[in-house]
Amino acid sequence: MGFPEAATGASTALLTDHYELTMLASALSDRTADRPCVFEVFARRLPDGRRYGVVAGTGRVLDAIADFRFTDAELSQLEATAVVDDATLSWLADYSFSGNIDGYAEGELYFPGSPILTVTGGFGDAVVLETLILSILNHDSAIASAAARMSGAAHGRPIIEMGGRRTHEWAAVAAARASYLAGFATTSNLEAGRRYGIPTRGTVAHAFMLLHDSEEEAFRAQVDKMGADTTLLVDTYDITKGIETAVRVAGTELGAIRIDSGDVGPLARKAREQLDSLGAEDTRIVVSGDLDEHAIAALRAEPVDAYGVGTSVVTGSGAPTAGMVYKLVEVDGRPVAKRSAHKESRGGRKSALRRHRETGTAVEEVIWTDGSVVPERGPNDHELQIPLVRDGRTVDDLPTLDDARQRLRRALVSLPWEGLKLSHGEPAIPTVFV
Amino acid sequence: MGFPEAATGASTALLTDHYELTMLASALSDRTADRPCVFEVFARRLPDGRRYGVVAGTGRVLDAIADFRFTDAELSQLEATAVVDDATLSWLADYSFSGNIDGYAEGELYFPGSPILTVTGGFGDAVVLETLILSILNHDSAIASAAARMSGAAHGRPIIEMGGRRTHEWAAVAAARASYLAGFATTSNLEAGRRYGIPTRGTVAHAFMLLHDSEEEAFRAQVDKMGADTTLLVDTYDITKGIETAVRVAGTELGAIRIDSGDVGPLARKAREQLDSLGAEDTRIVVSGDLDEHAIAALRAEPVDAYGVGTSVVTGSGAPTAGMVYKLVEVDGRPVAKRSAHKESRGGRKSALRRHRETGTAVEEVIWTDGSVVPERGPNDHELQIPLVRDGRTVDDLPTLDDARQRLRRALVSLPWEGLKLSHGEPAIPTVFV
Repeated sequence: MGFPEAATGASTALLTDHYELTMLASALSDRTADRPCVFEVFARRLPDGRRYGVVAGTGRVLDAIADFRFTDAELSQLEATAVVDDATLSWLADYSFSGNIDGYAEGELYFPGSPILTVTGGFGDAVVLETLILSILNHDSAIASAAARMSGAAHGRPIIEMGGRRTHEWAAVAAARASYLAGFATTSNLEAGRRYGIPTRGTVAHAFMLLHDSEEEAFRAQVDKMGADTTLLVDTYDITKGIETAVRVAGTELGAIRIDSGDVGPLARKAREQLDSLGAEDTRIVVSGDLDEHAIAALRAEPVDAYGVGTSVVTGSGAPTAGMVYKLVEVDGRPVAKRSAHKESRGGRKSALRRHRETGTAVEEVIWTDGSVVPERGPNDHELQIPLVRDGRTVDDLPTLDDARQRLRRALVSLPWEGLKLSHGEPAIPTVFV
Repeated sequence: MGFPEAATGASTALLTDHYELTMLASALSDRTADRPCVFEVFARRLPDGRRYGVVAGTGRVLDAIADFRFTDAELSQLEATAVVDDATLSWLADYSFSGNIDGYAEGELYFPGSPILTVTGGFGDAVVLETLILSILNHDSAIASAAARMSGAAHGRPIIEMGGRRTHEWAAVAAARASYLAGFATTSNLEAGRRYGIPTRGTVAHAFMLLHDSEEEAFRAQVDKMGADTTLLVDTYDITKGIETAVRVAGTELGAIRIDSGDVGPLARKAREQLDSLGAEDTRIVVSGDLDEHAIAALRAEPVDAYGVGTSVVTGSGAPTAGMVYKLVEVDGRPVAKRSAHKESRGGRKSALRRHRETGTAVEEVIWTDGSVVPERGPNDHELQIPLVRDGRTVDDLPTLDDARQRLRRALVSLPWEGLKLSHGEPAIPTVFV
């Protein structure tokens, strides 16, 4: 299990926008590339109507930065396509990030303007990481933010993530990680099991049922192989007959049935009655099939024991990207910011703390810039940034993926009740700039 | 450039759902794993209101299948986590796909029910590929389908894909490929340049402007390095002053200006007037910033020379996944299909042709199953599936990525005018099942 996860060794250097390197080339030419800079990752707003965001991907970012090296393969590609000149190629050949990174821990909540990640270093040192950092944080945080809403709606019932087939094959692995961070119990994705130690689950699909000459033969093959404690898929033909056959084949020790189609609420109620009448009182009911946080919430009163969630979680349930940006906020110790009419930003390196009542309920996110008056810190407040990288080295003893899971659980409990509603609304707590 | 692109060599075998392997284990146990099967990829419907879909990702699928091998690393992971038993591990150790694959060529249009990919082989042989095939096709086709609408809206003006930072770092590479297939001119993504030979472009971001003590110094540094034919970003401070400074620094030979914020229509008009009055009549205007197909269409009458598109294309412009499924349709030569109330499928191996009028306008998608009467093929009709894999080997001389680009261009021209409208509507042509 892990955070930081083992780096893969393959270079991540070309997972980068062309302009990061042409900017670098110009800055090397006019000797501005070494100017001390601070870049900041933040989101101007939450996705439409969302009340909080969940930071996810930081562990993957740190691994990807460790693998951000220009080897001969990358350099010869850049040379062949004339992206940059020889002086820049030499600089890139020696590149490894040597600055500092601070940021919100994974599993922390964020709000509009939260300084989620702060990268300090020479301009060239820090600018070349922009695309990669944003790709990872925007994707993983979008998934975790959606998954946290689903976990809340499930109210303690386990959710299995099974959406890998609905998203890019490697995004699927990251999505499994982000969903697990956000409280999902397991995933169907085997690579996520290998890479992050997330427990994987699965039994059979409808194809297995259709492969056999009858439902009974399929059930028998599965029970023979996996034992009676397996999950039988009962909706290939007729659900009532399916359940009858399932209990006849597996006995009342049958672990679970799965219903993957139809109006699963009424179907689950009917199935529960039937299972109970057959003496299979301990057989669980798993439902799946186009569930999102709203469908899960609507099933709260139904006799459902576990949910399978696919498309909606891997696509961020309507918000497939978190909209985070990476902005230069300080040059040579002076705050800088774009000043045209739109998309304005606040200059200066920022710090943040979250204020809480004595009861533990979060009240506001307080953000201040270097040089301004540091707000008083009450006994229930906590600062939000932690050191992640010092002089290019990832710090020791960073929180693990399981730590991030715990952190998010605690953070969600701290939100005002309003903030946990699934309906559209304002951010759960205001962001206050000192 | 290429299709099939060079395989990467890293195993793709664990980019797979747990249940594919447990199904296999049960089927090996009861000796159904070798039953001759046909699986079919299709979409039950197009995303809400869309009029056509674009097949993309087939080339990546074929590469990923070539790399679908269980090496010691994968097998020991499966053993350690007890996903399957020893007999299944042995079977997997010897696995390489040995069946046939037919499918729509990349760049072909698809409609509800189109048999996009048909996989023929033993049950075990074919079932283990489900997750990987769907991940790639669902992602890449969603992006290409959105990108094609944008290319159409741009009406010949070039679009640069620059959304890598808004999606998973590897999804970004595939998104660049799919956008290029769908008519985009270039990408910002350097890995897509390396892997697929797509031309990459980029100049500077606002960070480069803020790094410098003045806009003029930034422009001068950029022009000194990249020449006057570069694109200057004029909206960091005041656009009118920015354009004035840009032409003063670069001269009337200035290649382009970019406007990345604000109401870009009126801004482009004003910029055009100003550039012309300064004698920079050949200086182009590039606009970017939250553009989607509707925003692009709305700019058709404005003096815009090129578009930069990010978030909307990499997230499929509201439809981030294509909703394709992989269904078992034939076992031992007999059609099979799920029969419960919802999500019904049509059994049997299918073929498809598209009928056209003499004028070349598409009329309907005709689909028939093995054993039914083969529809007559008129002189303007063409069959839609091509052989992709025979006995496990990718066939020679498959269409390239540039071929796919051409194919899509021709296919879009063949649609009835209605079918190219951006507004919500029915599929451009009906699907007729014989």
